[in-house]
Amino acid sequence: MTKPNIAIIGGGVAGLTAAVYASRANASVTIFEKYGLGGLTATIDKIENFPTYNVVNGFDLTQNLANQVKLLGANIVLEQVLDVKKQADGTFEVVTNKQNYLFDAVIVATGTKHGKLGIESNYVGKGVSYCATCDGNFYRNADVAVVGNTNSAVKEALYLAGLCKTVYLIYNGNLQGDEVAIGQLKGYANVQFVSNSVVTGLVGDDFLEGAVVHNVEDGTSTSLAVEGLFVAVGSKPETEFLAGIGAQMVNGFVMVDDRCQTSVEGLFGAGDVTNGTLKQIVTACGDGAKAGSFAVVYAKKLLASR
Amino acid sequence: MTKPNIAIIGGGVAGLTAAVYASRANASVTIFEKYGLGGLTATIDKIENFPTYNVVNGFDLTQNLANQVKLLGANIVLEQVLDVKKQADGTFEVVTNKQNYLFDAVIVATGTKHGKLGIESNYVGKGVSYCATCDGNFYRNADVAVVGNTNSAVKEALYLAGLCKTVYLIYNGNLQGDEVAIGQLKGYANVQFVSNSVVTGLVGDDFLEGAVVHNVEDGTSTSLAVEGLFVAVGSKPETEFLAGIGAQMVNGFVMVDDRCQTSVEGLFGAGDVTNGTLKQIVTACGDGAKAGSFAVVYAKKLLASR
Repeated sequence: MTKPNIAIIGGGVAGLTAAVYASRANASVTIFEKYGLGGLTATIDKIENFPTYNVVNGFDLTQNLANQVKLLGANIVLEQVLDVKKQADGTFEVVTNKQNYLFDAVIVATGTKHGKLGIESNYVGKGVSYCATCDGNFYRNADVAVVGNTNSAVKEALYLAGLCKTVYLIYNGNLQGDEVAIGQLKGYANVQFVSNSVVTGLVGDDFLEGAVVHNVEDGTSTSLAVEGLFVAVGSKPETEFLAGIGAQMVNGFVMVDDRCQTSVEGLFGAGDVTNGTLKQIVTACGDGAKAGSFAVVYAKKLLASR
Repeated sequence: MTKPNIAIIGGGVAGLTAAVYASRANASVTIFEKYGLGGLTATIDKIENFPTYNVVNGFDLTQNLANQVKLLGANIVLEQVLDVKKQADGTFEVVTNKQNYLFDAVIVATGTKHGKLGIESNYVGKGVSYCATCDGNFYRNADVAVVGNTNSAVKEALYLAGLCKTVYLIYNGNLQGDEVAIGQLKGYANVQFVSNSVVTGLVGDDFLEGAVVHNVEDGTSTSLAVEGLFVAVGSKPETEFLAGIGAQMVNGFVMVDDRCQTSVEGLFGAGDVTNGTLKQIVTACGDGAKAGSFAVVYAKKLLASR
């Protein structure tokens, strides 16, 4: 029988684990990735909650996984997927910025991208960053701010606290994230919690020099002199290319069942891009294992019926 | 606020990962394990599908995870849990063979035990396996057999059919499993159905070389040359101790939702012991992350309400 032909869109940890499982089940596997393998995980400096590693760098972790996938013979195609279409006979057509491909089943594992303030575009790379691990080093001993009340805002602030002169954590609503991390953050004398506040403006001739902070409770606005501003206001799933296929989505996230199947037969989802209840590296990997396995089961059934 | 007090019953990969997540969320964590940490995973010789490890020994993998858990300060209690009771105020009483303990939330991660032929112990990891998804890849283009008439025997055979040279499905009684899967299996030219038969002996000096197959209908015995024998005579969840608590179960497996909650508030389940769709190390770890996280969320809420 013909080998099932599986597309995996996205080369983060979910997609890579899906590739491990589908390859080992003897499918022909193609991973589409627009940047490089590893996804958001590759940008994390220090990971302490991936099982079996006391502490590991995100880039190293994803390199290990990418090597495992390469050894298993998956094809890696560095193109951007623009559209996925399902044909009458069940075949999926994957349209990239370069060409079109046909597959028996498709796994969507494109993850999320950083949420934005909407006012920072002129300063991105000139003071504004979405990744403390990537850019924190440029702000050694400088005054910086983190904006957001998310779990990742807390983590970003923690990273910068050990590096920068002052770290303002500007947030509105309750601070999310685990108690240990928040407790740790409170232990830093150079961290200042700026609660009930949002950033309404940025100043600086060419490079960022300051942020206008609006207190939503008392209505006052103040100016903070900062050279760096780390935006951690949540993340947005990368699913624009799915607009045409009609899979059930909520807020842009792909709805999947407990086999990682979407509402479109043969289209699977794994990792941060889905409606999963906990967005962690290991849960994304677990999803990938399911999507990779059940996509092959589906494709074999499809091939047998032809 | 008092630290949430979480019990994890079972020290396999699901329980250990739950411990990582609950500990990091600042809970006081106690793992109950009747043998030693690592569970079934610790008994696997060669693992090639755990993300980031090209190949790893199961004992080593679980040791790494156990060390990570110990560094995070979880208590490990080598006692057998005999009963779990929920008291009127929501507190859980865990009764072991030695004493009684009280907790705010309980995670059940006791896994399953493999049904056995009773004759294979010398060849486990040397030709005999209980999981095609785990070990099938080691038998590419080899002659193998699956023993059992279960639904999972059919699935194991299907998985191997795309991978191995010949797959003998040795079974007695009616073949269970869905018609579609059985039909698919019949479509493979390399699958041979050996009905009315049981395996009565195994041969091979060090590694498995063959199986003695006894036909219970005509009384004859034949020898099949196989390098791999996949035993699929059913696996049994370790849930006897849950008899009294009234959680929803199916065939002894604990039913959980997408946050790993059982039908009893505050009682969570993770890994092979649950109704999960794919029983793999990484999916058990993913479950553990969820159960550990959501058990702490539940317990914090409970404590805040007192």
